[in-house]
Amino acid sequence: MNVLIVGSIGLDTIETPFGVQKDILGGSGVHASVSCSFFSPTALVGLAGEDFPQEYVDFLTGKGVSTQGLIRQKGARTFRWSGYYEYDMNQAHTRDTQLNALARFNPVLSGEQKKMPYVFMANLDPEIQLKVLDQLDSPKLVAADTMDFWINGKRDALVEVVKRVDLMLLNEGEIRQFMQTPNIPLAARKMIELGAKAVVVKKGEHGALFFNSRHFFAVPSYPQESFKDPTGAGDSFAGGLIGYLGKSNDLGEANIRKALVCGSVMASFNIEDFSLGRLKTLTHKEIHNRFGEFKKFCHFDELTADLAV
Amino acid sequence: MNVLIVGSIGLDTIETPFGVQKDILGGSGVHASVSCSFFSPTALVGLAGEDFPQEYVDFLTGKGVSTQGLIRQKGARTFRWSGYYEYDMNQAHTRDTQLNALARFNPVLSGEQKKMPYVFMANLDPEIQLKVLDQLDSPKLVAADTMDFWINGKRDALVEVVKRVDLMLLNEGEIRQFMQTPNIPLAARKMIELGAKAVVVKKGEHGALFFNSRHFFAVPSYPQESFKDPTGAGDSFAGGLIGYLGKSNDLGEANIRKALVCGSVMASFNIEDFSLGRLKTLTHKEIHNRFGEFKKFCHFDELTADLAV
Repeated sequence: MNVLIVGSIGLDTIETPFGVQKDILGGSGVHASVSCSFFSPTALVGLAGEDFPQEYVDFLTGKGVSTQGLIRQKGARTFRWSGYYEYDMNQAHTRDTQLNALARFNPVLSGEQKKMPYVFMANLDPEIQLKVLDQLDSPKLVAADTMDFWINGKRDALVEVVKRVDLMLLNEGEIRQFMQTPNIPLAARKMIELGAKAVVVKKGEHGALFFNSRHFFAVPSYPQESFKDPTGAGDSFAGGLIGYLGKSNDLGEANIRKALVCGSVMASFNIEDFSLGRLKTLTHKEIHNRFGEFKKFCHFDELTADLAV
Repeated sequence: MNVLIVGSIGLDTIETPFGVQKDILGGSGVHASVSCSFFSPTALVGLAGEDFPQEYVDFLTGKGVSTQGLIRQKGARTFRWSGYYEYDMNQAHTRDTQLNALARFNPVLSGEQKKMPYVFMANLDPEIQLKVLDQLDSPKLVAADTMDFWINGKRDALVEVVKRVDLMLLNEGEIRQFMQTPNIPLAARKMIELGAKAVVVKKGEHGALFFNSRHFFAVPSYPQESFKDPTGAGDSFAGGLIGYLGKSNDLGEANIRKALVCGSVMASFNIEDFSLGRLKTLTHKEIHNRFGEFKKFCHFDELTADLAV
């Protein structure tokens, strides 16, 4: 194992223009760890309920995800999210959220988990994220995600997370809200001034932006026509990113860029089917080929000509 | 002259969080032709009113834009647009539109104008765009822009324009509306099936996408913190694009990509000040440097490692 993922384990009920699916495998930790598992040996830490189906645990183990840290809490049901997407699938609409077991989630890491060099803390209560950080034994890189609920409700704890992690991931609406400016580059600079070492702004169909105090990098999203369910795309992005970093063990700028493209590649596959459907059949060759497509559609040559008219 | 721009000449009254400016130089033809003039000798065809200030004509001529085709209609006032942007400057809100002289615009090209190899028809009534197309004498490339008003009101004429030009530019909302799908890659494919040879989707702060039947290219926008007024950004984009094509006279895919980056570069300068303010002082060295910045922040290396875990 060299990547630790801490996040939610869920059962989702999702409606999109392409159908409805009930109690399907979901949760930020699940999407991130399966995506990550294509690149690095991955351990998932999360809390399910006793109703969490064994076949889903088997699927995770089958993908090489260590589920030693996936606890099924007796007497509790699994976290459930129910939502729908309209024809413009950029915006999720929540119908119902039942925290269930997740409300009691208080991750206690094993000796092996504490020593993992690469860590991704998916969207969780920032106070829980801080408790995870306290348990880590000199990791090489820790990344964290969050959501609007914590930006509004636990700002101080979240600011502490931002200062302590190496890479903060947010979507564009969240960073605008958090830094109180609609201008994303300005919001990213403010977050760096607040103490973030690096910021990744996830923009869904518009790709993602990376900012630190010295560098800026823009990666587009894949021109995806086969778009069935956007749930978990951001966590798949994070999983591909941290998984590639874990595999290559290189935190140079050039390698971080490749990791970000791997994130965009994995998100593009995630949305091709409901739940983890597409990742069930995904191969390394397909990942390689799609990375190659990204390389082609982002490339342009230097401007060599003298511009004088 | 080797680029012909046909578009509106206007006086804009604009309010943004950074101030209010009254009756400033604007119009799609003006933004596009000044942007284009940094790359190619440019001729502007458009109709102003008799109140159009001589200093604005002098500014255009000073930039090397031929204003032989800029007519000041006697007895008519210049086209006026008044609008405001809220703090999130992605969306323009119209307060007032007075077509004035523009309502009578019926461009009659001179012999020289008809023979220009590169042509951009900015947003205009598609019936007028068709009349311009009828007058052109075997141009190498014609690009056209449009807006929601014509998509709703003159769909048939607009479809005819789409079929006849080489490059159709629209913003993301417009192509979604025109092709009746929220999925941009799908909308672009539908537009190509409708007969478009190539489509550029302008996405403001999210950059632009190029589609034809064989290629896809994504260019981001510049991470712009110095953002004062977005008016005319799309036309500056088109001006930089057609201007670079006119200068290089190369319609190969690699060169079209460079032209699209030039478009994004010019749009990024346009928004730094009200009206054409920033383009007054802009130099070729600054354009070159910003292109170099784009090159840097879009680059990533090939994925060479074997991905097997």
